[in-house]
Amino acid sequence: MDLRDKIRNIPDFPKEGILFRDITTLLKDAEAYEALITELVKSLENYDVDIVVGPEARGFVIGSALAYALHAGFVVARKPGKLPCETYRTEYGLEYGNDSLEIHKDAIKPGQRVAIVDDLLATGGTALATAKLIECAGGEVVAMRFAIELCDLNGKALLEGYDVEGIIKY
Amino acid sequence: MDLRDKIRNIPDFPKEGILFRDITTLLKDAEAYEALITELVKSLENYDVDIVVGPEARGFVIGSALAYALHAGFVVARKPGKLPCETYRTEYGLEYGNDSLEIHKDAIKPGQRVAIVDDLLATGGTALATAKLIECAGGEVVAMRFAIELCDLNGKALLEGYDVEGIIKY
Repeated sequence: MDLRDKIRNIPDFPKEGILFRDITTLLKDAEAYEALITELVKSLENYDVDIVVGPEARGFVIGSALAYALHAGFVVARKPGKLPCETYRTEYGLEYGNDSLEIHKDAIKPGQRVAIVDDLLATGGTALATAKLIECAGGEVVAMRFAIELCDLNGKALLEGYDVEGIIKY
Repeated sequence: MDLRDKIRNIPDFPKEGILFRDITTLLKDAEAYEALITELVKSLENYDVDIVVGPEARGFVIGSALAYALHAGFVVARKPGKLPCETYRTEYGLEYGNDSLEIHKDAIKPGQRVAIVDDLLATGGTALATAKLIECAGGEVVAMRFAIELCDLNGKALLEGYDVEGIIKY
């Protein structure tokens, strides 16, 4: 199965000139969804991942299923004001503007091995911000994984030094 | 394992008088997280679920892992403006105010058997709104499942006629 066939391409969303890669058509297809998670699991064999972190909101989708499949815990990185306890917070640049993310200060134990997972690698800003939060908490970022990688945007350059892989490449 | 021991209770969040049940402490605990998903899977044995629908944002966490565990597809119900294609949209009342949800018009095929999954059953407004969207698309809502059920708020009354179950009850 070529998972690229399951992605819907939408021109000019969310703004003119952006070709949006819509993963919802893959997620709703049980066989394709399972194949995606299986590929992600394979890419993390022997990484001994303790915790998967997914950034809000589409990172929750890929990340939580992957955490379950890896027998790992799942930690959410959320937009400001959503988490009820003390948090670390960081601001970062996005493909379409600026944003902030938070994680609970007690979300990760020092030394835990953490994989960051999101639906899409574009410029890498969200993943880098998430890595900073994890490192603030004392976690070790052992991998960053993405369902889709937009290679032209060169997110891997921003994420130099990390183990970065996308499953579906454009 | 009593999964209730893994939930953190936070008084006066997000506003005074609300006792917030924080599921992040359960999710980050790999064993507890797996136990929760296993309980949800058991509660849906013999339901032949084709699609799991999770409302934004915490429904993505529970729902996507459950979809994977059930070998079902996953569909997101999102806040307005997030989905790139044509949507059905509905407004509804929440415990703390009003909100809207959308699903893609092509997210569910007519006749598909759908389970709605969210982290928390409070008044039931979000689940009812999600059910309406699924039924607009021609899906059959065969079950609604929740990690946490706040029994005092009597969401089951609003959801009368649906098969509703929470795993962790308060």
